[in-house]
Parts: sequence; C-alpha cells; structure tokens
Amino acid sequence: LLVFNDSWSKSLGIGEKVVTDSNIIFGDKEIDAVIICSSTNTHVEYIEKALSSNKHIFCEKPVSQDIEKLEYISNKLQANNFLKFQIGFNRRFDNNIQRIKEKIVDNICLIKFISNDPKLPSSEYLSASGGLLFDMTIHDFDLMRYLVNDEILSVFCTGSVLIDPNLHEIQDIDTCITQIKFDSGALGSIINCRQSPVGYDQRIEVLTRKYNLRTENIRESYVITEDQCGSVFDNPKNFFIERYRDSYVNELKSFFDSIIYDTNVSVGCLDLIEAVRLVKAGNMSLEKNIPISPRSIIK
Amino acid sequence: LLVFNDSWSKSLGIGEKVVTDSNIIFGDKEIDAVIICSSTNTHVEYIEKALSSNKHIFCEKPVSQDIEKLEYISNKLQANNFLKFQIGFNRRFDNNIQRIKEKIVDNICLIKFISNDPKLPSSEYLSASGGLLFDMTIHDFDLMRYLVNDEILSVFCTGSVLIDPNLHEIQDIDTCITQIKFDSGALGSIINCRQSPVGYDQRIEVLTRKYNLRTENIRESYVITEDQCGSVFDNPKNFFIERYRDSYVNELKSFFDSIIYDTNVSVGCLDLIEAVRLVKAGNMSLEKNIPISPRSIIK
Amino acid sequence: LLVFNDSWSKSLGIGEKVVTDSNIIFGDKEIDAVIICSSTNTHVEYIEKALSSNKHIFCEKPVSQDIEKLEYISNKLQANNFLKFQIGFNRRFDNNIQRIKEKIVDNICLIKFISNDPKLPSSEYLSASGGLLFDMTIHDFDLMRYLVNDEILSVFCTGSVLIDPNLHEIQDIDTCITQIKFDSGALGSIINCRQSPVGYDQRIEVLTRKYNLRTENIRESYVITEDQCGSVFDNPKNFFIERYRDSYVNELKSFFDSIIYDTNVSVGCLDLIEAVRLVKAGNMSLEKNIPISPRSIIK
Amino acid sequence: LLVFNDSWSKSLGIGEKVVTDSNIIFGDKEIDAVIICSSTNTHVEYIEKALSSNKHIFCEKPVSQDIEKLEYISNKLQANNFLKFQIGFNRRFDNNIQRIKEKIVDNICLIKFISNDPKLPSSEYLSASGGLLFDMTIHDFDLMRYLVNDEILSVFCTGSVLIDPNLHEIQDIDTCITQIKFDSGALGSIINCRQSPVGYDQRIEVLTRKYNLRTENIRESYVITEDQCGSVFDNPKNFFIERYRDSYVNELKSFFDSIIYDTNVSVGCLDLIEAVRLVKAGNMSLEKNIPISPRSIIK
Repeated sequence: LLVFNDSWSKSLGIGEKVVTDSNIIFGDKEIDAVIICSSTNTHVEYIEKALSSNKHIFCEKPVSQDIEKLEYISNKLQANNFLKFQIGFNRRFDNNIQRIKEKIVDNICLIKFISNDPKLPSSEYLSASGGLLFDMTIHDFDLMRYLVNDEILSVFCTGSVLIDPNLHEIQDIDTCITQIKFDSGALGSIINCRQSPVGYDQRIEVLTRKYNLRTENIRESYVITEDQCGSVFDNPKNFFIERYRDSYVNELKSFFDSIIYDTNVSVGCLDLIEAVRLVKAGNMSLEKNIPISPRSIIK
Repeated sequence: LLVFNDSWSKSLGIGEKVVTDSNIIFGDKEIDAVIICSSTNTHVEYIEKALSSNKHIFCEKPVSQDIEKLEYISNKLQANNFLKFQIGFNRRFDNNIQRIKEKIVDNICLIKFISNDPKLPSSEYLSASGGLLFDMTIHDFDLMRYLVNDEILSVFCTGSVLIDPNLHEIQDIDTCITQIKFDSGALGSIINCRQSPVGYDQRIEVLTRKYNLRTENIRESYVITEDQCGSVFDNPKNFFIERYRDSYVNELKSFFDSIIYDTNVSVGCLDLIEAVRLVKAGNMSLEKNIPISPRSIIK
Repeated sequence: LLVFNDSWSKSLGIGEKVVTDSNIIFGDKEIDAVIICSSTNTHVEYIEKALSSNKHIFCEKPVSQDIEKLEYISNKLQANNFLKFQIGFNRRFDNNIQRIKEKIVDNICLIKFISNDPKLPSSEYLSASGGLLFDMTIHDFDLMRYLVNDEILSVFCTGSVLIDPNLHEIQDIDTCITQIKFDSGALGSIINCRQSPVGYDQRIEVLTRKYNLRTENIRESYVITEDQCGSVFDNPKNFFIERYRDSYVNELKSFFDSIIYDTNVSVGCLDLIEAVRLVKAGNMSLEKNIPISPRSIIK
Repeated sequence: LLVFNDSWSKSLGIGEKVVTDSNIIFGDKEIDAVIICSSTNTHVEYIEKALSSNKHIFCEKPVSQDIEKLEYISNKLQANNFLKFQIGFNRRFDNNIQRIKEKIVDNICLIKFISNDPKLPSSEYLSASGGLLFDMTIHDFDLMRYLVNDEILSVFCTGSVLIDPNLHEIQDIDTCITQIKFDSGALGSIINCRQSPVGYDQRIEVLTRKYNLRTENIRESYVITEDQCGSVFDNPKNFFIERYRDSYVNELKSFFDSIIYDTNVSVGCLDLIEAVRLVKAGNMSLEKNIPISPRSIIK
C-alpha cells in the first residue's frame, strides 16, 4: 500500500509508505491499482496518469462536470480491454439497497427516493459543491438508473430556497423535487433537502404491478421509549459515513474482485457520464422551468 | 326495549319505557331476552328471575365469586335446552382478537398477554373491585382459555405493590405476573399492572411451532411526528370503551344470533365458572406462594 | 328527512318519505338544507334550485368542470350571506388528517402524498370519470391546499399508461406524478396510481424546518404473523368507504354545525373552483409537457 | 498475541505464535492477560494457572456449576487487588442493551425478556449443554440483574417439552417461562424456547412508573415487501454471532480498558456466581414446582 498525502495516513500509522510525489506511485511497477480520492480538480489528471502507467482505477465521484473529457477517458478505457475503472457510487453496494435490487424481478411502475441531509453544510462547502444536484442528486440519479435498469427520458426539477436565504446569493437551492420519466414510461421522483429535522433521511420506495418494496431508515438503535407522549423510535444513523459504512467496504471488495477475476466492474465510466448528464439536464430544467432530456446534453 | 334504571336511560331519551320495578320486565310476556348490567350484587337474583320467567339472558361479568351458586345456575340452564345465557366477556369479540383466533390452526406452545390499565382507579373502586385478579385478570384468564382452546392445569401468581402503597391496607396488589401451564403442556404468561405509562396496554403474543402471532396496541391515530428526538407514534386508544368498542356491539349481535338461529352462545356459564375458579386459584397462589390447580377450587 | 331516489332509500327502510319529483323537496318550506349526491350532471341544476328556494346545500364533488358556471354559483352565494354551501371533500375531515392539520404550526417546506387506488375500475367507470386527475387527484389538490394553507403557483404532471393499455384508447393514464410549487416556494408531490398491489394506499408526509409528520396507512387489523418468511403486517383498509368512514360522518356534522351556529363552512365553493382549476392545469401540463399555473385557467 | 490451540489460529494466519502447551503461555512474563475460551472443563484449571502466574483473565462463561469452586476463585481474586477477572456475559455490551441501560433512571416495576433460539441444536449439543437454564437462561439471569440493578429474591420456572419429545429422555425441556421477584418487589419474566419460527428472537421490555422501554429485534434488512398478503418485514439477524457481534468487540475493549486504566471490570466473578446460583434455583424450582430463593443455593 503506497499512499500519497501524509496527514491522514500518518494518523493511521502508515507513515513509512507515504509519498508526496504522485509520480512515484504511477511509476511503481509493483502497484497494480490506484484508488483516487484526492480533491476533485485532480481526478482527471490522475486518471490519465494511471491509464498511461497501466493501473486499474477506483475513482471517487464526481471526477468532472466536463462530459467531453469524461468521454475522452471512456474512449481510452474502451480501447483497453484490460484495465478496470470503477466509480465510487457507493450506495449501489449498500446491503439494504442490494436487497431491494435482488427483489426487483418485475417491471417498475414508480420509484421514489427521499434523500435528505441532516443539516446544511458550511457556506464554503456549499460554494464549492457544484450545486445541490451535482452534490446530492447525482447519487440518486445513479441509483435510480441502477434499480430501474433503464435509461431516463426526461428530467424536471422544481427547487426552492426554504432553509437558508444565503443560498440565493450563490444561485443555489436547498430543497428540490426531481420528476423523472424513463424510456419504459416508468415514473420517478427524487426529494432532496439540505436539512432534515429527522436527520439523514434515506428512503426508497418501488412500486411494480405486483408488489411494493420499501426501505425504512436504519435507526441508531431499536430501543423504543414509551410514555404518555407516545412511542418514540430512535433516529436514523447520523450521516453517510454511519448509514452507508458497509457500502464502502463492499464497493472496494467488488473492485478488487473485478481485477482478480477479470470481470466487468459494477459501475463504470459510462454510468458516471450518464449521471453527470442527468445533473446537467436537471440544472437546465431548473433554469428554463421545462423538462429536459439528458440526451440533449452533449457537453 | 324496556329499561330498568332511569338516570342513564333518560339521558338517552328513552324515558317512556323505563320501569323502576324489575318485576314489570320479568312479568312482561312480550320480552324474550334481558340484558343484565346492573350492579354485581343483583346479578344472581335477576338471573334467577329471568330463568323463572323464561327469558334469554345476557349478563355482564363477574356475576358472583360463589362457585356453588354459579354451578346451581349452570345446572338450571343445562336442564333447560331452550334458554340462551351469555356472559359479557367482550374481548373474545374484538376484531383483532378474532383475527388471531382464526389464524391459530396449530398447537400453541406459548401465549403471552400484557394487559395493563392506564391508571389506578379511585380507592373506592379498588376497595369494591374484589382485587386485581378478580377485576383485571379474569378477562385474561377467559381469553387465554378461548385462544388456546385448552384447560389450565395450574396457576402461579407473583404480585407486588409498586404503584400505590395504600394497596397494602386493603391487602391488594397493583402489579402481577401470572404463570400458567395448560393440560397440553403449553405455557402462558399474563402481565397485569394497574398503571401503565403508555396508557391502556393490551397486547397478545402467541408462539406455535410454525409461526408467531402478535397484536400491537391500536393507536389513537397513525400520525408520526419526527424530529431530532426520534419518531413519535401516537399512544394506544384511551381505555376499554375506546379500545374494545367493536367487541361490545359484536357480543350482543352474537347473543341475538344465538337466539334467532337457536345456536350455542359463544361464551356461557361454564366459561364464567372456569374464569372464577382461575381467579380463586390465582389468589390462593398469591397467598401460599405455590402454583395452584384450578381443579382444586370447589367453592 | 325527505329523500329523492327510491331504490337505495327503500333498502334502508325510509320508503315513505321518498319522492320522485325533486321539486317537491325544493318546494317544501319545512326543509332547510339539501344534500346533493345525485349523478354529477344534475349537480348544477339542483344547486340552482336550492339557491332559489333558500336551502343550505351540501353537494358531493365534482359538481362541474365548467369554471364559469362554478363562478356563477359562487357569485350567487357571495350575494347571499345566509346560505351555507359545503363541498364533499371528505378527506379534510378524516381523523388522521385532522391530527396532521393540528400539528402543522410551522411553515411547510415539502408535502408529499401517495394516493393510489387498490385496483383499476371498470372501463365504463373510466370512460365517464373525466380522467385520472379529475377523478383521483382532485382530492389530493384540495387536501394539499388545505394542509399547506397556501395557493399553488404551478403544476407539472408526468403520466404513463403502465397498468392497462386500453387507457391509451380513451386518452387517459393510470399512473401520474404531479409536482407542485406553492406561492411560498414550498414544494409538493402527488403520486397517483389506479392500481396498487398493497391495496388502497393513502399516505401523507409533511416536512417543515422543525419536524416531519407522516400518516401511515390504517390497517385492517394490527395482528402480525411471523415465521421464517418475516413479519407480516395486515393490509390497509379496503377502499375509501372503509378508510375514510369517519370523515363522511364528520363532514356532515361540520355542515350541520355551520348551519346551526351560522359559521363559515370548512370547505366551500371557492375551494371547489380552485381544485377544478388545478385539475385543468394538470391536464394541460400533461398535454403540453410544461408546468402550468392554475391562475392561467379561466374556464 | 500467543495462542494455544492451533487449528483455528492457523486458519487466521497466526500460526507462528501458536503453542500446544499452555504452560508456555502461563510462563511467559511478556504476557499480561489471557483470554480463556477453551472447553468448559478446562476453565477452572486455566483460571488457577493464570492467577498463579499473575495474569489478568477474561474467561468465557459458564466456567463451572460448582459454586464452592467459583467462590474459591472469587476469594483468591479478592485477596489480589491487582488482577482483573472478567466473565464473557457479552449481552451486557450490546449497543441496544447499553442504550436501554442508559435510559433506566427510574425504579423498574416489571422487566420481561423473550429470548428464543432459532432452532433446536443437535442432540450431542443438548446432552452436553447442562440443560436449558444453564445453556440459555443464564444469559438472561445475568442481564436482568444488570438492568434492574437489584438482586433476585425468588425464581419460579415452568417448563415443557413442546418441540422435541426426545428431550424427555435427557430430562431436559425446550420451552420455559421463568418468573422472578426482586428484593425491591419488581417482577420479571423470562421466556425461553429452543426453537422459534421467527428465528433468533431477542426482545426486552422494561416498565417503570414513568415510561416503558422496549428493544425490537434487529432485522437482517429494513426492506419491506408489500402486496395483497400484507407488508412483510425482514426476519431478525440469524443467531447470536450476527445479532450480538458488536458486544464481543465491546466486552474485550472494556476488559482491556479496565487493565489499562486499573478500573473495575464490568462483570466479574460474583456476577458469575449469582448467575449460576439462579440457574440452580431455577432447576430446583422445575423439580419441586415451587419458587426457590437463590440465596438457598450454597453449592
């Protein structure tokens, strides 16, 4: 394990193997694969270096909003049958979501996500976030494509600033409903809010012609306190680190398996491109107040 | 409808048909059936009058603690093939409990009741109640016999005064666990408490070799309020009037049906005798701190 | 009680007071109020007759899709300070929904309905229904205005035929998501499907800055059956008659109270007009695939 | 880490440090503490060796049914202020149970456990298990003492063979209800069954004068499948390894902390002795069909 970036790794006691020049990693023939979780502006550069030095790549989302650049990477990958490239859309690997995926054996009519954060992040974070859709909804877009197993025909977003008036200044929103139509005619709805009084609210509902599937939030505990005010169930797990902990382990295991057994990665570059396209369609929808087809987004 | 006792009936606007001499009712040949819900000390007298005047009888529990007297009534009833005699063990007729009864098609291994009142009644009520087992547990004994469809071999009660120290004075308890063994070997447990912080707590659980059955409390509403303190579900329905409202209608409908169609009543004099015997066995168990067979209770 | 229409009333044993000429009712000075639940095409005529003969009116929805006619009625009512006119939007009077209404003391950010029918009605019913929005969503539009206590700025609907391909022939849909923006910026989402595998699915969720409110479905029973397949909770109450039974009693009680105490009705002609306007905006949105302001709907 | 017993440790790849003579471990001055999880018949011998060689001890329950021997160990420990001795009553360290413990700030009136295994173990296991109470109920006895923070005055058990008739041959039972009275008058009830149709059923309920506390089972997933048969929630986690995984980590962390910071262990030799005494009182109660005081059990 060679690590680039020293403060975090030192805190874990893996100090000796830290390098401050990433080229040492890319030049090391002993290294078969890299996990890129540096700041977003470095993603494209490191991906290109990894490709040149023939290393498998696991890269954290969002990589880039530049679709032409993403397609350039995608083309390079397609020209190389050997290298694996996986994107960190971790929610696909969550145990509850996996259970839902297994149970979907019928055509989906309706799919509905509530995907709210516990509280507003700092204004610094918000300014650099790329906007609510690029920061939050991108996960939901990817997950919806994955669960429905179909492409999205059109996206219509309605957004508001209801939590923090300062968001007006940076032309962002804090609350949004995204309405989706799939090629099959299936309908989708994503609710996103930057601040939820109940904490990290992550629920999925799927309606098919034969059955419904739902995931409740995973609670901190299953202790219920009851008195004259009612029966109080514990809150959802704090935030994404706690709620989706298993998915981070599972996604890396899946990545390593695809290298070891030379199988396709579960979520690759084309999934990333489609998710970015959907975000851009959503943003255009917000701007023009009409539904937008992601197929019309070419850069 | 002829009614004896005027204050309640006047409040309902059925004043003209009220009589103050019960003999007018028992002497009226137009009347086929009587519903006895006067004070407990009058139950035996009115039952005997109704029997003599050939009227079907619906009588509120508990009738009497005197088993010899109850057996005398039972013998009279058995000698008369025509008259119906139903006891007001209303819980058997509750929709939820009916649903459980329908679903029990396998041998029961374990049955467990929680049957707690919302709060301590007045000291007057308590003094006249006949004690916790005669006032509360009698319902649970009857319901358990009904659901398990078997007789009880032995009863062991453990009681405490944990809510109101004044109960020591009247040699009563406010909290009790009753442990039951049925003839089949099935085991039962009844929890009774005079005061429950969550309100009227009425839950049943049945374990068979193949499945479990449970009833939750029926809540006042199914509105859930969620904030940083958790998800708050509404409390159970206030008390027996609200919780078991349907059962009071259903039990009378069942009584009338047994008259109209000349079928057996659902819960008759022998059920009452067995319930009283179980209460007395429980009280003896509390006194002697050993399990008691209800078959050893003969008066 | 004078009743017009004989088969139903005869079945209830109120045959003597049935008339076959509605003018007898409107001409009877003893009658203070009429409840109009005849077929929709007669609503306007009877409302006008009731207004002329000075009778309070309770009229079942939907009355008419003709906004000019509804405004004509509304103007007549406004000119008459005395007469009460209540519309049968019964869900406002449901106990669970009342509980939610009471608990909304903060600004709403998001409101979300799932309002699915248990199964597709007959093709005759569908042909005469006026379309999914006029038949189903109209209730949800009214309820959303009531709970949010604000007017709707724009409506965007996405619909599909996913259950019954025959709906294509009558230019109707069976599945629809309606996205709403209120004047305040609050966002709403309504999901409607003609057929739900779980039965009559009626859920509401409200998100404010301080708390969430939810209603679960009211189940047929609260018996849970558990085995190696999981814990099975009973289904929702069958359909609107069972689910909203209390609301039908409550709405009439409210109507009578507004007559007796000369107070405003809870839901009147302007609420009806707004609901019809929203349905028409929704239908136009489906046709043009853009969001529509109900204020642009003038006839 | 020195390990005695080689097959398991080899499978974990810690082969070099495995010894086949336990004296090497007890003689190694570098070793401060031992974790004894060998077969029960070796527990006492190893504890004595560890005491002689001045090593802290974590020992899996049940150690021994011989109370005199346990008291001999306890006396040795009390004579030694330095050495820590912790017993593997892991459930005390479960996160859900910890949450309950934190919330109990009032006097307990009633405490109720359901503690059922998913299925009958092999007949070999059953023969060597020491009986249902020594194998299953011992955990519940310890947990109840811990949560109520009081000693048990008397124990009354009722048992049956309802699952496997072969248990009659080894004079064991498969289903048992244990009724408990604490010194304070608080009442307890433990339900144990060797086979539960719902799987590993682990529920706790606590009633105080001011509130109730409950833990539900922790489910495999929180995906709910709904169709015309109802809403199906997933089953509880498979068995103790899955359900109480966190507790095994937490108990060792607690043991190491008590060594590092020289604090009292959370659950020591006296807790073990009391649990064994309660098992023996329970067994005597089964035999004599009367309640038994654990204080009467002296060997």
